[in-house]
Amino acid sequence: MRIARFSIDGNVAFGSVEGERSDDLVLDIIKGIPYADFELSGVKVPLSKVRLLPPVLPSKVVAVGRNYAEHAAELGNEVPDVPITFFKPSTSVTGPGDDIAYPSFSSELHHEAELAVVIGRMCREVPRGRAKDVIFGYTCANDVTARDVQQREKQWARAKGFDTACPLGPWVETDLDPGDLAIQCTVNGAQRQLGRTSDMVRSVEDLIVHISEAMTLLPGDVILTGTPAGVGPLNVGDEVAVTIEGIGTLTNKVIKRG
Amino acid sequence: MRIARFSIDGNVAFGSVEGERSDDLVLDIIKGIPYADFELSGVKVPLSKVRLLPPVLPSKVVAVGRNYAEHAAELGNEVPDVPITFFKPSTSVTGPGDDIAYPSFSSELHHEAELAVVIGRMCREVPRGRAKDVIFGYTCANDVTARDVQQREKQWARAKGFDTACPLGPWVETDLDPGDLAIQCTVNGAQRQLGRTSDMVRSVEDLIVHISEAMTLLPGDVILTGTPAGVGPLNVGDEVAVTIEGIGTLTNKVIKRG
Repeated sequence: MRIARFSIDGNVAFGSVEGERSDDLVLDIIKGIPYADFELSGVKVPLSKVRLLPPVLPSKVVAVGRNYAEHAAELGNEVPDVPITFFKPSTSVTGPGDDIAYPSFSSELHHEAELAVVIGRMCREVPRGRAKDVIFGYTCANDVTARDVQQREKQWARAKGFDTACPLGPWVETDLDPGDLAIQCTVNGAQRQLGRTSDMVRSVEDLIVHISEAMTLLPGDVILTGTPAGVGPLNVGDEVAVTIEGIGTLTNKVIKRG
Repeated sequence: MRIARFSIDGNVAFGSVEGERSDDLVLDIIKGIPYADFELSGVKVPLSKVRLLPPVLPSKVVAVGRNYAEHAAELGNEVPDVPITFFKPSTSVTGPGDDIAYPSFSSELHHEAELAVVIGRMCREVPRGRAKDVIFGYTCANDVTARDVQQREKQWARAKGFDTACPLGPWVETDLDPGDLAIQCTVNGAQRQLGRTSDMVRSVEDLIVHISEAMTLLPGDVILTGTPAGVGPLNVGDEVAVTIEGIGTLTNKVIKRG
């Protein structure tokens, strides 16, 4: 099932996305919240009539660096012995179709297309055999990075945590095997990144074990699983799109921060 | 004014702490929430009859590394040209009197006594002259750190973001000049850290400018301002206390994570 979050007439709701053709999708409005038991209302609205919002409002986004060997190499880094984990705050999350605001303190913004894992239940110290059970679904993410700031500042809170640095969407796909999916990033229609999730150094399940060893994950929390090779600059006016096989496309435009 | 958050008979409330003698404090229950206009109800309960909770529930804690020169030196580091900023997630926050749970993946837990700044209003790109206006008040913090993990892992999400790694309390003092306060940490009554906030490399106002340049701060968000020299190990069974002049004492016991 594909679960979108959207606003309509000033209200926020979740809906199940139905239909195949991208210009003819319909949302069946969900009664309740999707992390618990819920029902479809049968009340349907065309997707074209609503504004999609970030499909989740995470309390935290935990991201992983250098999880594709080719990407580590392109920035002159080795794959680390232990995963590099960092946070993107809730204030950095933005939705499909929303603008990425180029921050004033950077002059080298980069795209990083990533598979995002959405957690479905409160958990800590998840054993590997139970990791699948805590997953609600998957969406597309762009781990937007101020590369120059990242290189200047030892910890990445500002470089990867500024407002709009975490586009998520367009919806959460709950029925998906994340093991071998094509993941692509285009800028103004031109391909920049193309990889497969099978090239991840650590699998989704390994990352859940590693992160939850330290901290409680809450429903709606998000894990970003690293980016394949091909990262590069974003400029004001660019349209950047992250497409993951079996999920869909997350598109955002880069604007000057107002 | 000192504003505590507490639970009583299963309800959570804020209260103004009144009285001078620590064994005779009273809470005047607040009507509404303290970040907006509020009134005191006049309904008073003895502090000894309630359980104090973390005085705020931050959406994010933004912390600063190596902001006291002597502390940077004791770990063999230099004071960085730009502040080192990192996040501690909301799931790491715990309250006064709560236990610090020694995580299974570390064998070198350290205390770091810090002045915590509580943000009072939503803000971004705060000019230096307005930085004071966005401060709600101050409380004590312990930036508990798995030092061995911090040294092994390039980014500090697990080393400083595990559950219970961010004790805050005992309450928020809203009337305080943070410029030159004694800050102390004891373990089982023996002094470990003693410094003055006047030795901070970057002031509270400088840090607000630097952090809010990148990201929106929300009411209740917390900035940790760095720790003075004297950091050292915590062991299971230890009682660690952070005392800041003009605020009070935050005490926590270290237990084995269950």
